[in-house]
Amino acid sequence: MSHNSFGHLFRFTTWGESHGPALGVVVDGCPPDIAISAPVIQRDLDRRKPGQSRFTTQRREADEVKILSGTFEDERTGGLKTTGTPIALEIQNTDQRSKDYSDIRDKYRPGHADFTYDQKYGIRDYRGGGRSSARETAARVAAGAVARLIIPGVKIRASLVQMGPHKIDYDNFDWAEVDNNPFFCADKTSADQWADYLDDIRKKGDSIGAVVEVVAEGVPAGWGAPVYGKLSADLASAMMSINAVKAVEIGAGIEAASFSGVQNADEMRAGDNAPYFVSNQAGGILGGISNGDPVVVRFTVKPTSSILAPRETVTVKNQNTDIVTRGRHDPCVGIRAVPIGEAMMACVLADHFLRHRGQTGREGPTGF
Amino acid sequence: MSHNSFGHLFRFTTWGESHGPALGVVVDGCPPDIAISAPVIQRDLDRRKPGQSRFTTQRREADEVKILSGTFEDERTGGLKTTGTPIALEIQNTDQRSKDYSDIRDKYRPGHADFTYDQKYGIRDYRGGGRSSARETAARVAAGAVARLIIPGVKIRASLVQMGPHKIDYDNFDWAEVDNNPFFCADKTSADQWADYLDDIRKKGDSIGAVVEVVAEGVPAGWGAPVYGKLSADLASAMMSINAVKAVEIGAGIEAASFSGVQNADEMRAGDNAPYFVSNQAGGILGGISNGDPVVVRFTVKPTSSILAPRETVTVKNQNTDIVTRGRHDPCVGIRAVPIGEAMMACVLADHFLRHRGQTGREGPTGF
Amino acid sequence: MSHNSFGHLFRFTTWGESHGPALGVVVDGCPPDIAISAPVIQRDLDRRKPGQSRFTTQRREADEVKILSGTFEDERTGGLKTTGTPIALEIQNTDQRSKDYSDIRDKYRPGHADFTYDQKYGIRDYRGGGRSSARETAARVAAGAVARLIIPGVKIRASLVQMGPHKIDYDNFDWAEVDNNPFFCADKTSADQWADYLDDIRKKGDSIGAVVEVVAEGVPAGWGAPVYGKLSADLASAMMSINAVKAVEIGAGIEAASFSGVQNADEMRAGDNAPYFVSNQAGGILGGISNGDPVVVRFTVKPTSSILAPRETVTVKNQNTDIVTRGRHDPCVGIRAVPIGEAMMACVLADHFLRHRGQTGREGPTGF
Amino acid sequence: MSHNSFGHLFRFTTWGESHGPALGVVVDGCPPDIAISAPVIQRDLDRRKPGQSRFTTQRREADEVKILSGTFEDERTGGLKTTGTPIALEIQNTDQRSKDYSDIRDKYRPGHADFTYDQKYGIRDYRGGGRSSARETAARVAAGAVARLIIPGVKIRASLVQMGPHKIDYDNFDWAEVDNNPFFCADKTSADQWADYLDDIRKKGDSIGAVVEVVAEGVPAGWGAPVYGKLSADLASAMMSINAVKAVEIGAGIEAASFSGVQNADEMRAGDNAPYFVSNQAGGILGGISNGDPVVVRFTVKPTSSILAPRETVTVKNQNTDIVTRGRHDPCVGIRAVPIGEAMMACVLADHFLRHRGQTGREGPTGF
Repeated sequence: MSHNSFGHLFRFTTWGESHGPALGVVVDGCPPDIAISAPVIQRDLDRRKPGQSRFTTQRREADEVKILSGTFEDERTGGLKTTGTPIALEIQNTDQRSKDYSDIRDKYRPGHADFTYDQKYGIRDYRGGGRSSARETAARVAAGAVARLIIPGVKIRASLVQMGPHKIDYDNFDWAEVDNNPFFCADKTSADQWADYLDDIRKKGDSIGAVVEVVAEGVPAGWGAPVYGKLSADLASAMMSINAVKAVEIGAGIEAASFSGVQNADEMRAGDNAPYFVSNQAGGILGGISNGDPVVVRFTVKPTSSILAPRETVTVKNQNTDIVTRGRHDPCVGIRAVPIGEAMMACVLADHFLRHRGQTGREGPTGF
Repeated sequence: MSHNSFGHLFRFTTWGESHGPALGVVVDGCPPDIAISAPVIQRDLDRRKPGQSRFTTQRREADEVKILSGTFEDERTGGLKTTGTPIALEIQNTDQRSKDYSDIRDKYRPGHADFTYDQKYGIRDYRGGGRSSARETAARVAAGAVARLIIPGVKIRASLVQMGPHKIDYDNFDWAEVDNNPFFCADKTSADQWADYLDDIRKKGDSIGAVVEVVAEGVPAGWGAPVYGKLSADLASAMMSINAVKAVEIGAGIEAASFSGVQNADEMRAGDNAPYFVSNQAGGILGGISNGDPVVVRFTVKPTSSILAPRETVTVKNQNTDIVTRGRHDPCVGIRAVPIGEAMMACVLADHFLRHRGQTGREGPTGF
Repeated sequence: MSHNSFGHLFRFTTWGESHGPALGVVVDGCPPDIAISAPVIQRDLDRRKPGQSRFTTQRREADEVKILSGTFEDERTGGLKTTGTPIALEIQNTDQRSKDYSDIRDKYRPGHADFTYDQKYGIRDYRGGGRSSARETAARVAAGAVARLIIPGVKIRASLVQMGPHKIDYDNFDWAEVDNNPFFCADKTSADQWADYLDDIRKKGDSIGAVVEVVAEGVPAGWGAPVYGKLSADLASAMMSINAVKAVEIGAGIEAASFSGVQNADEMRAGDNAPYFVSNQAGGILGGISNGDPVVVRFTVKPTSSILAPRETVTVKNQNTDIVTRGRHDPCVGIRAVPIGEAMMACVLADHFLRHRGQTGREGPTGF
Repeated sequence: MSHNSFGHLFRFTTWGESHGPALGVVVDGCPPDIAISAPVIQRDLDRRKPGQSRFTTQRREADEVKILSGTFEDERTGGLKTTGTPIALEIQNTDQRSKDYSDIRDKYRPGHADFTYDQKYGIRDYRGGGRSSARETAARVAAGAVARLIIPGVKIRASLVQMGPHKIDYDNFDWAEVDNNPFFCADKTSADQWADYLDDIRKKGDSIGAVVEVVAEGVPAGWGAPVYGKLSADLASAMMSINAVKAVEIGAGIEAASFSGVQNADEMRAGDNAPYFVSNQAGGILGGISNGDPVVVRFTVKPTSSILAPRETVTVKNQNTDIVTRGRHDPCVGIRAVPIGEAMMACVLADHFLRHRGQTGREGPTGF
C-alpha cells in the first residue's frame, strides 16, 4: 500500500510540493527495450503546462523533465531505451514567487485542502497548497507519457465537453479541433463561444466547472479483471484522484439511470473476424473487462476554489474571518485536466495490459 | 495485487460463482476484541437478499452466513469476539435451479460480461453469469457488516434517489422511510409512485436504471490520504466495482460542472470547538481527506441487462442470432444495490480509519 | 497489504484455526484453462497430513480438500479447468478432541506464540494454538498444488538433509529415496540411522531440529526481479513464514561466509545453445534473478516446542509456574515441513513466472 | 506490487544506477510532525560510504543527500519536520570514472548479475553493474535513517561477527568497539586479527565472505503479524534483498537444527510488571510477533565477485573467454553491509510499528 502510488504492474509513485525545489515520479515495472526520450515525455508535459493561454494560470514553469534512471543508450540507434528498472523523472520548480504567505498560513481557504491537511497531519506546507497543489499532476502526466509507450496500438485522446452549463454539440465533434483552441475542445463552435464566456468569468475573478471526456481507441477485448480489479473501477479511482474531480462516468454514465434495459444493453452483430457492438453505451467495458470498443470515460471538474470574491472562512485558531485568494489561478481548472485525464487513462490501460499478459499469456483476446 | 480483493489494512477477498456450491469472503486485518456474531452480519445480508418483494428476483436464497474463523468465545459474555486473524464467512448456494443453460452457453447476452469473460479467459462458467453474477455482492455485504463494527461511531445509510427519470424530492427526505418501502427510498411519495412505475416495467419484461445515494455521518476530519489514496478515489473504485454501476459522484458531483467558484466552495464558520462548513457541496471530502461533514456518494446503476424483449446478438461462433433472457431477474437492480453501496462505504471507511491510525497514531483529527 | 496473503500475481490468502470448524485458502490470479482436480491437490496434502508414521503427530485428520470455486467442467473432457477466477479450497477440521484446555489457556507455553498473540491482540484462541498452529500449513500446501500446475516444466522436490546434528551424506543423495522413508530423506543410509535416533528422542518426550532442502529444476533464466522483488528475497520470506523456521539459505548459503571470491563465483562455459555454469554455489539465482540452474533453498526448522519435559514458565497473570505439554505432537516438525517447503517454492515460482511474463511478454529468457 | 519498493505502511521505492546521474529513494507513509534533517540522514550514509578505509572500494563518492520533498520548516524551531507526504531523497553520482567498459559489456562476470539481467530484460546498463550495483544500498540506508526517527525507542546496532572462517568471540562483544575499527566489529581482538587477514586477501586480489549480526533493542512485544506478514518473514526478505546476501538467520538460526526442544524453547519467569524470557534463542520473535526481547538477525554475505584472479566465463555471444575484473572493489563487501543491515532492520520495524498501531490502536503490547 502506498498513498502516493498508483497501479500494480505498471506502478508509479509521485512526490513533491508546489513550492519545494522539485517534483517527480518514479515509474516501476515498465517493460524493457522500449524506445524513450525526454522530448517524448516533454510533449505531454507541455500540453499541461501553465501559462499557455490567458485561460490558465500565469505561473511560468518550464516543467522541463529530466530522466534520471531506468534507461540506457541503444548502441545501434544512439537513442535511449528502457531497461526494465525504475524510471525516475524529475521537474525543477522554478517560479515559486517569494511572497507573503501569511494569509494562506493563517486562514483556511474554502474548497481547498488546507483544513483537512491540518486536521490529518497537524502540519502543512501551506505555500501554494503544498502537496495538495495541482502541480502534482505534472508528475502524472510524465508517468502517462511513459505508459503510452507501452501500449502503442492504443490511441488516447480527450476533449473538454462541457464548461459550466454549456455542453458541446457532439455532431460537431472533431478530434482535429482539440489542439486548435485553448480549451482542448473537439467542438470548434463551442470553443469559440466559451472564449467569451470564460473571459467574462475570469474578469469577474470567479471560476467555473467543466467536464472532460477521455476516449481510448484500439483497446483489445480482454483487458481488465473481475471483481475489484475492474477496468472501470481502476479508471474511476484514477480520474477521481485528479485534483478537483467530483464525478466519474463510464460510457452512458449517469444517463444510464434513465435508460430502460432495451435502450441500455448494446446489441451485437457478427463481423468478419469477430462480433461487433452496434452501439457503445457500455463505454467499451462489460463486467469490468474491455469489449474491444473505445473505452469512454468522463469526469467532472469542480470550479477553481481560488477566486477573487471574498469568502467567509475561519482562521487556524477557529476565529471567523474572510479571505480573498489572490495569486495566479486557472479560471477553469477543467481545461488543464484534459491532458491529465489522458495520462491517467494511459496509466490504467498500461497496467491492465501487463496484468492481462501476466495472467493469461496473451496481449489481447482469445479471438474466434 | 489481487483482482478479487479490496482494501489495504482492512482487506477482504471474495470468491464464488452464481451456481457453484457456495460463495464467501475472507476479511483480513480486522482489529481484535470486537464483539461480532452471525446474526449481526445476517441482518445486512437479509436486506440485500433476493426475493424480498415482487420488485426483486424471485430466486430464493437464504443467504445464511457461517463464520468459519477469526473469532473466539469471550469467556465473560459467552459472545464471539474477533481475534485479529482472518474472518472467513461462507454462504451456501441453495437455489441453483437445474435448467437448460444452452442458450446462455452458446450466445452472448447483450449488456452482460459473457463476451468479455470469453475473450479474456477463453473459458467461462456461464451458469447464471458465473463469477460476474451479482451474487458476488452478498460477500461484499458480509464484509461490510464486519467493517461497520470497526467504526461504530459512523452511521452509514443509503437511499434510492432516482428510478429511471424520476428523482426523489429531497424536501421529503426522511431516513426513517427507507425500510418502509420495497425500494429503500427515503422519500415516501416517490416510493409510492415508483411502485406503479416499476410494476409496469416489470410486466413488460423490461428494466430500468437508478441512482443510489450513500451517506456516512460521524466520520471525523482527517481520514483519507493524498494523492492516489484519496478517500474519494477509493470510494469511486469501491462503488464502480459494484455490478452494473456506470457513474460515481461525490457531494455535488456532476452538478459541480455547472457551478461557479462562488457557488461551489463551502464556506466555513467558527464553531464552539471547531470550525464548521456552512454547506456540503464537497460531500465531506477536501483534497481526498474527510472534513468532518457527512460523506456523500451517489452512484448510477444501469438497468438490468436480462430482459424479456428479444435482442440481437451473436453466438459464441460469431453468428447472428437473437436472445430472450428468461429467468428470475430484478427489473431494477438499483434497488438491491442500496445495501451494497452501504457495505462498500463501510469497507472504505474502516480501511481509512485503520490507515489513518497507523500513520498518525490518532483516530480522528488533530483538533483545535 | 494483507497479513495472511502471499504473492502478487499468483496470490493466496489462508484462513482458519487449529480447532475451528475448517480452514482454507483462496487462490487468486491463477491463469485460466488449466486442468485441475481435487485429487491432484489431495496428493500434496496427503504428504503433509499428520499421522503418517510414528514420527509425526497422531492427530487424525483426513485433510480432505474441497474445491468451492474458480473451476468449470471442460465439456470435451469432463474434467475441471481453472477459469481465472478465485479458487477457494476448504478442509474440514475433524479431529479436534474435546479436552481440557485450561493449562494452555492459563499458561504460556515456552517456544510457542501464546504470549505474543496475547500481547498483540489481547485475545487468543488457545485451543491447539489457534491461528499459530501448523495446521495452517495445510492451506499452503493446497495453494502450492495449484501453483505447480501453472509451471508444469518446473520440477520441485525436497529432502530432509539434517536431523539434529546429523547431516546427510550428499554422495548418497537419491531423489528416488525420498518417499521410501518416513523422513522424506534422499539419503537412505541417513534415514535408517535417523529412525533409531528419533525414536529415542520421541520416547524421551523431547524433540529435535532439522534442515530441509528444496530444489526446483527447470526454472528458466530470467525469473525474479531487482531489487526488493528478488527471487531470493521472496523465497526467504516464503520459507521464513513457515512455522518454526529460523534460517533460510540460498545455494552455498551460510557456507559462503567462509568462501573466497575464487571459490564462490560460479564460472561459465559456452554450451550448445546457451552458456552454462560450471558450479552452482549461487543456488540458481544471481542478482535476484534465476540463472537457469536449479534453484536451491535450505531452511532450518527448530525443534517442536511442545515436549513432555516440564518447563518453567508463567501464567497469563505473570506468576511463576511450570508446564508439561501433553498432546499429540511431532518429535521433529522438520519432517512435515518438507512438502510445505516444496509448496512455498512452487508458489514463489508461479508468482514470478506470471510477473516475468507480465513485464517482459516472455515466459523464459531472451536466449542467444 | 512493485519490484523496487519495500514495506507497506512505511514504504520506500528506490531508483538509480551505478553510473547514472543520481540515485534516490521516495519514502511514503512516514508519520507527520517528526523532526528530520539532512545531517541526520547523512550520518548513516557516511557509515556506508565507500573509501572509508583501505578495506573498502576506493571509489570516491560524497554520497551527499538532498531532501527534496515531504518536509516543512517548523516555525518555532526553524528545523525541518515531516509533513506526512512523500519524502524524496536524492544523491548525485560524482565519481563515475570515464573508462573503457567493453570488457564488462561483452563478457559476463562470474558471480554478478550481468547474465541474468541480459536474459531477463535483453538490455543492460553494464556500467558498474547498473541497477544491480551495491550503490543502490545508499538509497536504503537513507530510507533507514528516516525509519529510525519513527521508532526512537528502538536502538538498532550491528556488528560484523564473522570474516571468512574467523568468528568473533562473543565473550569480547562490546558495542562500543564497533566504530573503533574499520570492520564495524564489536570484538576488538577479532578486528585486530582481521586487519592482517584481510590485507593479505586484498593484496592477492581475492575477496572473502562475512556474517553480519543486527540487534534491535527496545522493540515492545506485539509487533509483527501472522502468517505471511511475520516479522521474521519480513526481516528475511529485507536482509536477503541486500546485494550478495545468501543466508538469513533469526535468533539461534541455523544452530536450532541441532537443538533439542529442551535446549531451544526459551523459558519464562515472572518479572515485576511483565514476564521475561530466561534466554533468547528465539531472537525476540515467537510466531512472527516480537516478544519484547532484542530482535536478533544474522545474515551471510558472499565474497565480492569482482576479483583480480582470472576467471573462466563466456561472452555475450556464448563464446568461451576469461575475465579479470579490475576496478575499485571491496575485498569484503560484508563490512559495508553492516550499516545496510541496520537500515533494513529499521525499515521493517518502522513498518510493523505502524501496522500494529493501525490494526490494534496500540503502539506496544496489551500488558498485564
